[in-house]
Amino acid sequence: MTRRRELIDVAMGKTAADLVVEGGTIVNVATAELYLADVAVKGDRIAAVGDVAYTKGPDTRTIDASGLYVTPGLVEGHLHQYHSYLGVTEFVQALLTHGVTATADGFYGPGIVAGVPAVRFFKEAFERMPLRLIFLVPTLAWLQNRELGLTPTSGIDASDLGDILAWEGCYGLEEPPYLPVVEHYEEFLDLFDETLRQRKVITGHAAGITERQLQAYTAVGVTTDHESVEVHDALSKARKGMTLLMRQGSGCFDVPEVVRTHTEFAIDPRRLGFCADLASPEKLLGEGTIDQSIRVAIAQGVSPVHAVQMATLNNAEAFYAQRDLGVVAPGRYADVLLVSNLRDFAIECVLFGGEKVVESGAFLIELPRTEYPDYLRNTVKLPRPISADDLTFRVDGNGDEAEVRVIGVTEGSLETDECRARLSVVDAVVGADVEEDVLLLAMIDRFGKGTGIGLGFVQGFRLERGAIASTANAVCENIVIVGTDPADMAVAANHLASTGGGKVVVRDGAVVANVELPICGLLSEAPLDEVMQRFETAFAEIADLGCPLKNPFSQLEFCFACGEIGHIKLSEEGLLLIDDPPRKVDVVVG
Amino acid sequence: MTRRRELIDVAMGKTAADLVVEGGTIVNVATAELYLADVAVKGDRIAAVGDVAYTKGPDTRTIDASGLYVTPGLVEGHLHQYHSYLGVTEFVQALLTHGVTATADGFYGPGIVAGVPAVRFFKEAFERMPLRLIFLVPTLAWLQNRELGLTPTSGIDASDLGDILAWEGCYGLEEPPYLPVVEHYEEFLDLFDETLRQRKVITGHAAGITERQLQAYTAVGVTTDHESVEVHDALSKARKGMTLLMRQGSGCFDVPEVVRTHTEFAIDPRRLGFCADLASPEKLLGEGTIDQSIRVAIAQGVSPVHAVQMATLNNAEAFYAQRDLGVVAPGRYADVLLVSNLRDFAIECVLFGGEKVVESGAFLIELPRTEYPDYLRNTVKLPRPISADDLTFRVDGNGDEAEVRVIGVTEGSLETDECRARLSVVDAVVGADVEEDVLLLAMIDRFGKGTGIGLGFVQGFRLERGAIASTANAVCENIVIVGTDPADMAVAANHLASTGGGKVVVRDGAVVANVELPICGLLSEAPLDEVMQRFETAFAEIADLGCPLKNPFSQLEFCFACGEIGHIKLSEEGLLLIDDPPRKVDVVVG
Repeated sequence: MTRRRELIDVAMGKTAADLVVEGGTIVNVATAELYLADVAVKGDRIAAVGDVAYTKGPDTRTIDASGLYVTPGLVEGHLHQYHSYLGVTEFVQALLTHGVTATADGFYGPGIVAGVPAVRFFKEAFERMPLRLIFLVPTLAWLQNRELGLTPTSGIDASDLGDILAWEGCYGLEEPPYLPVVEHYEEFLDLFDETLRQRKVITGHAAGITERQLQAYTAVGVTTDHESVEVHDALSKARKGMTLLMRQGSGCFDVPEVVRTHTEFAIDPRRLGFCADLASPEKLLGEGTIDQSIRVAIAQGVSPVHAVQMATLNNAEAFYAQRDLGVVAPGRYADVLLVSNLRDFAIECVLFGGEKVVESGAFLIELPRTEYPDYLRNTVKLPRPISADDLTFRVDGNGDEAEVRVIGVTEGSLETDECRARLSVVDAVVGADVEEDVLLLAMIDRFGKGTGIGLGFVQGFRLERGAIASTANAVCENIVIVGTDPADMAVAANHLASTGGGKVVVRDGAVVANVELPICGLLSEAPLDEVMQRFETAFAEIADLGCPLKNPFSQLEFCFACGEIGHIKLSEEGLLLIDDPPRKVDVVVG
Repeated sequence: MTRRRELIDVAMGKTAADLVVEGGTIVNVATAELYLADVAVKGDRIAAVGDVAYTKGPDTRTIDASGLYVTPGLVEGHLHQYHSYLGVTEFVQALLTHGVTATADGFYGPGIVAGVPAVRFFKEAFERMPLRLIFLVPTLAWLQNRELGLTPTSGIDASDLGDILAWEGCYGLEEPPYLPVVEHYEEFLDLFDETLRQRKVITGHAAGITERQLQAYTAVGVTTDHESVEVHDALSKARKGMTLLMRQGSGCFDVPEVVRTHTEFAIDPRRLGFCADLASPEKLLGEGTIDQSIRVAIAQGVSPVHAVQMATLNNAEAFYAQRDLGVVAPGRYADVLLVSNLRDFAIECVLFGGEKVVESGAFLIELPRTEYPDYLRNTVKLPRPISADDLTFRVDGNGDEAEVRVIGVTEGSLETDECRARLSVVDAVVGADVEEDVLLLAMIDRFGKGTGIGLGFVQGFRLERGAIASTANAVCENIVIVGTDPADMAVAANHLASTGGGKVVVRDGAVVANVELPICGLLSEAPLDEVMQRFETAFAEIADLGCPLKNPFSQLEFCFACGEIGHIKLSEEGLLLIDDPPRKVDVVVG
């Protein structure tokens, strides 16, 4: 770590730079200009930019950037490592390969599973990596689904959030949702005030928010949002001073719509940034993350320099990190990309802290391995094996038919709609109706909370047989299963418990595909390509079971309680309508 | 003070707003848009903006803004109250009248005179006023002229600066200059690091800086500057990520030149803000401060909405204050201007914290009086009365002529140039040469530092008789005098000591005009118009003495040591060349 004062003598020409990047065209995101300029680096920071030939000594390394653009390393505004299923080392390598040299994360998933120590573990693991962590307080690790009346895991309480806020390197709060604001959770509002007092940022999560709720949400000091999916909603947020972290992630493709705020409605682009939020292994191996967002924005008519601002300075400013990140200027970290053309944002070279880490697509350095402690393993705890009987939906009384509420799933949307179905009742048991695509859904407490098992019905998966299951779903991280019959579903649940968690596909009583995620039941220890291969195998098996969804695990996970997203959700404590206020309802109508 | 959480129920329509501003056109500086919208206010903050009719209850006050623009209150980026000579109450009234509802100040002048208690006193006095104080650590109150090798006053030491940084309501450092940076003052650099660690801002002062010094200065984390007077210098600073607080103050008219960075060189206007730095009573009674800067910028071709951004959001963001200031949006203070047209920026009404304070030019409220403690009075301390002999310039040896260095003053510039003159020596005394406009100059220690009296010569004042003197000059705050003969100069000095300080004009042994500044020798207790009248009388008398300078007191004060500004300066410890490095020189050459 270079102290800033070590830069002075290099800038003054009294000592030599360690590195000079020569001959490139700076993309100056501070002024929105392009011009030829060189960059002098001392240690891991930039000492001078411009005509810096005087900083070269006999031992100064040089990089020839002739014909290339020199941009800041990309600053990811909102991305959950754990939703990529990758371990820290593998995730960092994937981001760097796409030019992302800083990322914002609070590790709420591990926090839900294993509490404050897990959050600290992941923060420290990232801090050993060549990636700048914009660490945020994982408010969801405390909140979970408290606002829905559900029982949280016990790892993080409200006072822990205040402690975490004061950790060195903490930039603010990670996406506290709006319901606890409008419901006046005083612990939350105290935390908000303290965050502002510490000059830190309250990042937002304003999915499905009404105009009045948005007024209240911004009034308490929330200044970013990544959940806009419609241009007028986005405009309303920007007009209230929010930075829109336009999302282009796995299953969410919001940039083309939200960027219309600028390309059509002509708002000042300084309020627009990029994030991925969710990045699957496939995305990380393929199109990329916010490097792809730059390409998408330019294709929508954004000027290249504005698009680069959206991936760098605008995000850095949203976190008040611009003195360190997001600009190629003196004093900032020497995290710099060399790009052969802006329109395609073709990254030739990634420098992190003045060291080449990626060149021509090749990863050049050995990253530190991440050694996970035992308490992050074997976190799928069931009091006893799950039986088919446990997952059998029963009704009281007689009758040979029941009307039930069904969670309706739509391809490509994480929202859910309430549907109804009439199902046969045989010996007080209501089974799936495979012909009508009404399948069984279950959530099983995996933390020993004593909350048990919730059962319901879902439409949209079109499984013809078998079951698919996961130990991850945002904000619960319980076992979740969809299937055609309780026996296969029980096989899936027990398999997950025995392997420490992951994703599983069961057919005819046997596991046919499996993505092991032994760390917290959320993360793999395998390399990126192997994790992707495992997912591809699982997706093929799921398709073979009849399911046409592109991303069946994500769609499955969002059938379950997840804050205010969607209209009807299942939890292990029963079915919920996400109304105002949210409330529990019976699966069986009337 | 309204807590943010009190806004929630107003925004949600559950309780009524206190005030709704209806029918106006919002100048939304966040998005750079204009549109019709109403503003609901609860207490001193904005609860909702847009269609807020639902927030009106039977007791809600309304203000009709039909046909008017609704802008944020103006945020002054860099302005020294003490350079206006006005007391706190009078100064605040003047700013509010011009739509300025927030101002950045560190009170370094009072700090030099009376130490930490004075800084705290002024901070607290402002905090009782209807004006948002962006308080900054007065680094110059410690630095004074240490970098020139001069003896500082004893009131503030380096550790005090660190204590002040931690005060509630402190946003960062007030203009530490670049010399101590490039000279590696470790106390300063430690303070810089701590400032950044606390997520506070290091505002800059980069007058006459070289490109290499600027690289070093920005590398250590300085992110604003208000000293640009030339477009290429300004461009270089903006390209290094600085916000340019373009100065349009008394004696400095930099906006037309510096704004060319945007109007001609087309840089992103987000990096441009406004400040006055120095605002005389005349300016405050007349053209205004940064409201005038808006008019000037628009006349130079800046779009009105960008010009308003420069006076509001851009400055607020430079201090990371935008969650409270600089935008008409939920959660911000209800500091709002109603403006009848943007091009003239004609302010019809000023609201502070939801209260009307100015309407149609009339000041509507009674401000708290400021009661100054005794330790701020009688601060002009001389060990004994000054005699003409004390101010007589003597040389050793014989000879009837001496060549002397002369400080050359130019109308309208605070820079100084080294000139030479040959003066007669009579009985080892070198007197002024009134015919050739070579006058006597003196600085007298007024703090009991024991540094005594410095004598020299100056050209440019063209006094034909008499003397003018002041107890204020930036960064020394000593007694400074220019005159044609030592006797009149001694009268001036003794008069200032007996009145507690101010400005004085002496003719033929008698005081003919006098601006009493009894608070720290810097500030008046009189109303603005009376202070201005006193100055006008003094200016008339000075003109009558033969001096053609428009602002003779400012020009006098900048003949004396003031950090790195100018090329040759006098101090009570002798004559200084402000070279690299600065050094003392004899007045007599050879």
